Amino acid sequence: MAALLEAVKHLHPRGFSLHADADIATPRDDITIQRDGLLNTDLVIVLGGDGTLLHTARRLADAEIPMIGVNAGRLGFLADLPLGALRSSLDAILSGNFIEERRELLTARLVREQQSLDLGLALNDVVIQKSDTGRMIELETRINGTYVCSHRADGLIISTPTGSTAYALSAGGPILHPSLAAFSLVPICPHTLSNRPIAVHSASKIEVVVVHADDAQVHFDGRVQLSLLPGDKVSVQRAQNKVTLLHPEGHSHYGMLREKLHWG
Amino acid sequence: MAALLEAVKHLHPRGFSLHADADIATPRDDITIQRDGLLNTDLVIVLGGDGTLLHTARRLADAEIPMIGVNAGRLGFLADLPLGALRSSLDAILSGNFIEERRELLTARLVREQQSLDLGLALNDVVIQKSDTGRMIELETRINGTYVCSHRADGLIISTPTGSTAYALSAGGPILHPSLAAFSLVPICPHTLSNRPIAVHSASKIEVVVVHADDAQVHFDGRVQLSLLPGDKVSVQRAQNKVTLLHPEGHSHYGMLREKLHWG
Amino acid sequence: MAALLEAVKHLHPRGFSLHADADIATPRDDITIQRDGLLNTDLVIVLGGDGTLLHTARRLADAEIPMIGVNAGRLGFLADLPLGALRSSLDAILSGNFIEERRELLTARLVREQQSLDLGLALNDVVIQKSDTGRMIELETRINGTYVCSHRADGLIISTPTGSTAYALSAGGPILHPSLAAFSLVPICPHTLSNRPIAVHSASKIEVVVVHADDAQVHFDGRVQLSLLPGDKVSVQRAQNKVTLLHPEGHSHYGMLREKLHWG
Amino acid sequence: MAALLEAVKHLHPRGFSLHADADIATPRDDITIQRDGLLNTDLVIVLGGDGTLLHTARRLADAEIPMIGVNAGRLGFLADLPLGALRSSLDAILSGNFIEERRELLTARLVREQQSLDLGLALNDVVIQKSDTGRMIELETRINGTYVCSHRADGLIISTPTGSTAYALSAGGPILHPSLAAFSLVPICPHTLSNRPIAVHSASKIEVVVVHADDAQVHFDGRVQLSLLPGDKVSVQRAQNKVTLLHPEGHSHYGMLREKLHWG
Repeated sequence: MAALLEAVKHLHPRGFSLHADADIATPRDDITIQRDGLLNTDLVIVLGGDGTLLHTARRLADAEIPMIGVNAGRLGFLADLPLGALRSSLDAILSGNFIEERRELLTARLVREQQSLDLGLALNDVVIQKSDTGRMIELETRINGTYVCSHRADGLIISTPTGSTAYALSAGGPILHPSLAAFSLVPICPHTLSNRPIAVHSASKIEVVVVHADDAQVHFDGRVQLSLLPGDKVSVQRAQNKVTLLHPEGHSHYGMLREKLHWG
Repeated sequence: MAALLEAVKHLHPRGFSLHADADIATPRDDITIQRDGLLNTDLVIVLGGDGTLLHTARRLADAEIPMIGVNAGRLGFLADLPLGALRSSLDAILSGNFIEERRELLTARLVREQQSLDLGLALNDVVIQKSDTGRMIELETRINGTYVCSHRADGLIISTPTGSTAYALSAGGPILHPSLAAFSLVPICPHTLSNRPIAVHSASKIEVVVVHADDAQVHFDGRVQLSLLPGDKVSVQRAQNKVTLLHPEGHSHYGMLREKLHWG
Repeated sequence: MAALLEAVKHLHPRGFSLHADADIATPRDDITIQRDGLLNTDLVIVLGGDGTLLHTARRLADAEIPMIGVNAGRLGFLADLPLGALRSSLDAILSGNFIEERRELLTARLVREQQSLDLGLALNDVVIQKSDTGRMIELETRINGTYVCSHRADGLIISTPTGSTAYALSAGGPILHPSLAAFSLVPICPHTLSNRPIAVHSASKIEVVVVHADDAQVHFDGRVQLSLLPGDKVSVQRAQNKVTLLHPEGHSHYGMLREKLHWG
Repeated sequence: MAALLEAVKHLHPRGFSLHADADIATPRDDITIQRDGLLNTDLVIVLGGDGTLLHTARRLADAEIPMIGVNAGRLGFLADLPLGALRSSLDAILSGNFIEERRELLTARLVREQQSLDLGLALNDVVIQKSDTGRMIELETRINGTYVCSHRADGLIISTPTGSTAYALSAGGPILHPSLAAFSLVPICPHTLSNRPIAVHSASKIEVVVVHADDAQVHFDGRVQLSLLPGDKVSVQRAQNKVTLLHPEGHSHYGMLREKLHWG
């Protein structure tokens, strides 16, 4: 909240019209609270962490509004602008000195007994996973209509480059550079040890059928979206819209990897 | 069932007194159905797969009755006697030509708000794991009273050598030879990539505290035993009793690994 | 050799002009032995294994002649046409029923003390690796001019999608689908455990500087190309030409993965 | 050298007789230079890093003289006493406040054409590995006379618990607690992905035959010991003697793992 006020006080005198999505303690003249109004802004500044940015990105995906991620706590993979340098970074970006980066999103549909249901968007990953019984599930995967394999595993992660440094990395997946138009399929604790991560073009259509499961679920960016039944098919593709992130000049994706992963 | 009758018909004329735990289609003179009577037998023949043997082993642990595992379906790590050679293998073993192997079991207690609750036995593994929200949990581990580390992960597997070729292997753990008095601690999809499997002496006392979790559970040999709350401590040690497995002569643990893991 | 004659006897009557690169036992009317003449052919049939095909692909890269890989021994990832079905498969392909696939090659240059030396082509991978002292080497990597990290490791594999099922897979790299315009950078036994494989666009320029090494070498497709000295820079990019592979209709890359990797 | 003098100046007045293995700049009254005389001392203080301690441990193994490892540079797994606290730590240890730890060593013999050759001792690991051609080698492993498997790989690491945090960890091996009487067999980049690390009792006799190799070598603690030929057998067992390490009170093996591996 202090950070929000700091941003407001800094930007309002510079002639920007400011809209806040979050509650602020006291009504103020220099900011408008409008939860649904963000869609009409030119730029969204996300104060929080990667989780907040993921959430906001999904919400604003249709509008394709550029976003800046400010890390209120520790450095995030997405929220990479340090709070300490908030003012100078905003000044630099708002005067046009920034790097623009476009990230692909996943969209998924559930097909159950001939019915099809839109499941929404994910910026990191769509995960099909066991839940409470703790028993392995069995999934069958097709890519562009071609049978790939049956997995017996805790689950399967379908990850964007953005998600490749999140859950997919913990499960043994590769790091995909954000500029690579690719998705990775990363099995979680697969029964067959040679069931290794695969990277495919992001134009691929990935279909996952639940062959056997007591309690499978599908998760989007780490949140439960739906419980799955045997026979369900989850069909995953890239979304039409992309997320636009603005970084300060000099931003390096590799620099962030080095810091977050304790390289070197 | 056919296999059960085959075993009965083969063994009864040889003077053995037979007791069945499972239902058989029709009452027979040559076998006694007694679900609780197995504790008084000299040898238990398990017809099924690894799952059936795990279950039986836990049930009979106190009595330390030797067991033979017959694989009714595909070759198991434990149920290693092929159904096709049932008669000759039984004859060989019953005439004293066998390899005896002793496997350690895990026993665990839950400590919650000063109360302590016995959770029972596991032959493969005790697993503390997230369940339905799908969110990472945070665990703190102590070995023999010494702080080891905090894990943020999908969970933690504490595995016997027997379990080291089961779930622990899928999660990246080492294969522990059955004769090694050791347990492995294998994190499941750990957030910190250097959080690697550790093997400790089986005389160790392993304590795992749930630091943060929305929905942790503790599983024994793949079955949910209990839901866990933040603050709960699961204390894991080797059990007093061991499981005794009889194998036909010539049995090789490595031979079974080669076959099951498609080595070479 | 028998396979070669079988192919000759089958194809010559059908009006094809045949040229052999390999020695055949006795001179024959129906085939011309011409080691350098393959560059003028319309199609090259490689009888051998993946190694033979790799070698041939590098040799013929400039001419971009389509190739068919026939596996004389066991199934290869590249030599995927079974010897047993040689005639019918050739008939089918030669009558136009085939799948054409284009694979990217790597090209590399050595920069040493301002001098630059062309190192040639690789279809699988360019590997920079320790050799006889067995001591870890230290490498510094740049992608498109941006510093990535320093690796202390046994080495670093830069792999095409074709090579992603070869050495890179053994070292923990992901499987890259052949249609993905990507290369992977896979560290070999890295000292820092979080030094995980990265996939980047195949238009990237990858530069690797040998920071410290007693005995580094650079390998192309598994063959030593050159010894490296500290300070040497190996600069790797995609080659201008691609390799064209013809497969019989119904060929599935995933089917081959399933078979070679014992999936399912 | 400064550290050596600091230690000398601190210990000599306290009545200890001091012997130096290393060169010191000027002759001094308070210390004797005797390269071979260390075998008669009661305690060896190693100033350097893990490499120096490994080397010294192998040299002094027969005499079983306790050792203290002082890390002159960055914290080591073995050289765990910080240089900054040298005096106070030495005082504490010399007045009897220490933790004594015994570590197992490996000993290996080469068997070539009926001849047997003692290869010496290793505290971390015995590694059989490819060298300059960079081609995979093929090894056949036996444990206590029982065939385990054939590995096609870059090599095989046989590691003590001490070595389990060194090269074996980089190759995907488990961390073995120093109190566990076990060795791990860790394949390096195995061709068969299910060829996973195995831990066996340290009383095991491990035999590795070089089935096929252009250029295999055997390394001890990271130094080349010998070139190997096809048919050679390397036979590895625990050594009769152990290494004794003294740590300051409060020393925690897990604390060191946390620090070195950036846990938590």
